[in-house]
Amino acid sequence: MKILIVGAGGVGSAAVRIAARRSFFDTLVVADYDPARPAALVAAVGDPRLVAAQVDASSSESVAALIREHDITHVLNAVDPRFVMPIFEGAFAGGATYLDMAMSLSKPHPTSPHELTGVKLGDEQFAVADEWEAAGRLALVGIGVEPGLSDVFARYAEDELFSEIDELGVRDGANLVVAGYDFAPSFSIWTTIEECLNPPVIYEKDRGWYTTAPFSEPETFDFPEGIGPVECVNVEHEEVLLMPRWTSAKRVTFKYGLGDEFIEVLKTLHKLGLDSTTPLSVKGVQVSPRDVVAAALPDPATLGDRMSGKTCAGVWVTGTGKDGQPRSTYLYHVVDNEQTMAEYSSQAVVWQTAINPVIALELLATGAWSGKGVLGPEAFPAGPFLSLLAADAPIGYGSPWGMEEKPLA
Amino acid sequence: MKILIVGAGGVGSAAVRIAARRSFFDTLVVADYDPARPAALVAAVGDPRLVAAQVDASSSESVAALIREHDITHVLNAVDPRFVMPIFEGAFAGGATYLDMAMSLSKPHPTSPHELTGVKLGDEQFAVADEWEAAGRLALVGIGVEPGLSDVFARYAEDELFSEIDELGVRDGANLVVAGYDFAPSFSIWTTIEECLNPPVIYEKDRGWYTTAPFSEPETFDFPEGIGPVECVNVEHEEVLLMPRWTSAKRVTFKYGLGDEFIEVLKTLHKLGLDSTTPLSVKGVQVSPRDVVAAALPDPATLGDRMSGKTCAGVWVTGTGKDGQPRSTYLYHVVDNEQTMAEYSSQAVVWQTAINPVIALELLATGAWSGKGVLGPEAFPAGPFLSLLAADAPIGYGSPWGMEEKPLA
Repeated sequence: MKILIVGAGGVGSAAVRIAARRSFFDTLVVADYDPARPAALVAAVGDPRLVAAQVDASSSESVAALIREHDITHVLNAVDPRFVMPIFEGAFAGGATYLDMAMSLSKPHPTSPHELTGVKLGDEQFAVADEWEAAGRLALVGIGVEPGLSDVFARYAEDELFSEIDELGVRDGANLVVAGYDFAPSFSIWTTIEECLNPPVIYEKDRGWYTTAPFSEPETFDFPEGIGPVECVNVEHEEVLLMPRWTSAKRVTFKYGLGDEFIEVLKTLHKLGLDSTTPLSVKGVQVSPRDVVAAALPDPATLGDRMSGKTCAGVWVTGTGKDGQPRSTYLYHVVDNEQTMAEYSSQAVVWQTAINPVIALELLATGAWSGKGVLGPEAFPAGPFLSLLAADAPIGYGSPWGMEEKPLA
Repeated sequence: MKILIVGAGGVGSAAVRIAARRSFFDTLVVADYDPARPAALVAAVGDPRLVAAQVDASSSESVAALIREHDITHVLNAVDPRFVMPIFEGAFAGGATYLDMAMSLSKPHPTSPHELTGVKLGDEQFAVADEWEAAGRLALVGIGVEPGLSDVFARYAEDELFSEIDELGVRDGANLVVAGYDFAPSFSIWTTIEECLNPPVIYEKDRGWYTTAPFSEPETFDFPEGIGPVECVNVEHEEVLLMPRWTSAKRVTFKYGLGDEFIEVLKTLHKLGLDSTTPLSVKGVQVSPRDVVAAALPDPATLGDRMSGKTCAGVWVTGTGKDGQPRSTYLYHVVDNEQTMAEYSSQAVVWQTAINPVIALELLATGAWSGKGVLGPEAFPAGPFLSLLAADAPIGYGSPWGMEEKPLA
């Protein structure tokens, strides 16, 4: 297997560090628009299978050329979702399997944005699924942690735990704090604004996909392993578009544990127009307010040393168990920042995203996972993935997942 | 009397429109850095006593030269407080009486900003009070609405209503709303951030001046004439520096009725570093976050037509009445936006600021007020001012003030 990772930012770098401990691949090219970033990473990791390269992720030609140059078999997209389509198209043109951790972007419904879907997340990719399938080629979309591991949990719940699923409710929460800052998000504020201010999408079997207003249906969810209760709200996320395609759940939701403070910050930015990506004229220069917000905050990739706490991703499944009784179960994966910093020099949120596509690549390398078309993680058997995730090294990745029964409503 | 108004923005323009209805002056030169603004104003008002001019408010030489050119006797500073010192010095050099509506800026204490004062508002002006007095010249500082009318109320309370004052508590609140915007401040956001995020100053007779943290001592104050309860917090303001110099109040405070929403917005901007005036590098351009915030919001001077509601300025006086009994009285001035738009094409907040220096100029012209040195409004008799404010035109300015007894604590 010859892998190309596009993007040497936080997630791409963590994926390289995780993969370097595994033997399933022959070559891993890591490429970035700024060639100094992959060069520094490759030098720091010191694995002879690693190669640094330069790429323009906005150009499918640039991606395809790099694939051909290095005989790449698998491309992992690790840049921000604005570049999904050129990398996806470049992988097809170059003849490689494609993996990503976020799908093509949505556009709100022009007249009823908080009721109806417009262009949905991933629509542009699924629109060409037939071409991928006809060519016998695979695009494995949404294989980070959320989407990604959450979708694997959904598959596992449907196959092993439940006879009927009323709701697959993805719930994401953390108790991470960053010392020395009044406010320091642990993930890209640009992307967080994009996710949280877009109309959240919900799926119901009888109704199909529909949207609500941002921050709708607030709920306090009690997260495991000491994280505790966090205020969660509906957020637009890929799982809601993926899970209904390969499971029989009656309802699919995604709620993000932003917490009261973060929700208030995002609402305020929106109220003041500071979430906008449209450039403003400010004392003779043109600048987009959202870029100014990002520039005013510390870079989350540099905060690992000052962070402490845990982050949790998972799916709350409700319905009827295999025994015919009502069941309410949270399947989850918790990562402690202290551990990821000590073992991988990578902060918890970034590391938890990066481990999943590396496991998927290993399953594709061994043949445990195979397929063609544009497929989500829930289109593949969950068992091999969850075993490899939890098993101790050197067999597995040594990162256990958990399961907690919740009180029945 | 030959007047120079420096600044043809919202307040300067409103002062010109108000003055044009009065007969106490011979010439009124209105000057701005942008010569088109006073030219348009003079053409619109159509009073032969008006003259448009150009001036650089950051240069005391430019101000003094304009004074000499037009034999100016009185200079009214109507630009933002960054230009107080050059205009103040230019007036002295040019031999004119000086009036302003905000005083020279403060600097926080370098090590204990939320406990101790550093450079206080007006310190730079009071530092040269002896020179003004020795020259037999007058600088009347802080004669807008707040500071200004609030200080006149303080003088009135001490002379006419109270034998002993425990606290002079300036309280400012409004129920103004702007149609068509989620969030649209009715006053410069740049200045509001400056006022609200500087450490608030408090005066106590036994302790002198001291500071607290921004937004300290929140209090719900019930404003008159239908405005109702508004959340108020301590804010740095000139009255706290002025009133103790000419009254015997044991305590002086200023609380601004920002309301919960505005307080939350300002706290969020501060938490994210978006209140900063230090330029940031954003995608290759240099820009100050506070300028971006101002540019993202509508210009308050253009919002008068969309605004509705009332604004209230006043002083809540507690202590012992002239009859020896405990007393709690709010002296106030309420302005309705609908009325100021109809009569003066000026929004309420701007108009309420501008009327007071015009009345002061008329009192100086008639000799009802006179003095030398650097003096606040409370150094002059309150009666003539309040009579002229309230009396119907053509004798007075037809803008009544009120008095309300509050429940005793």
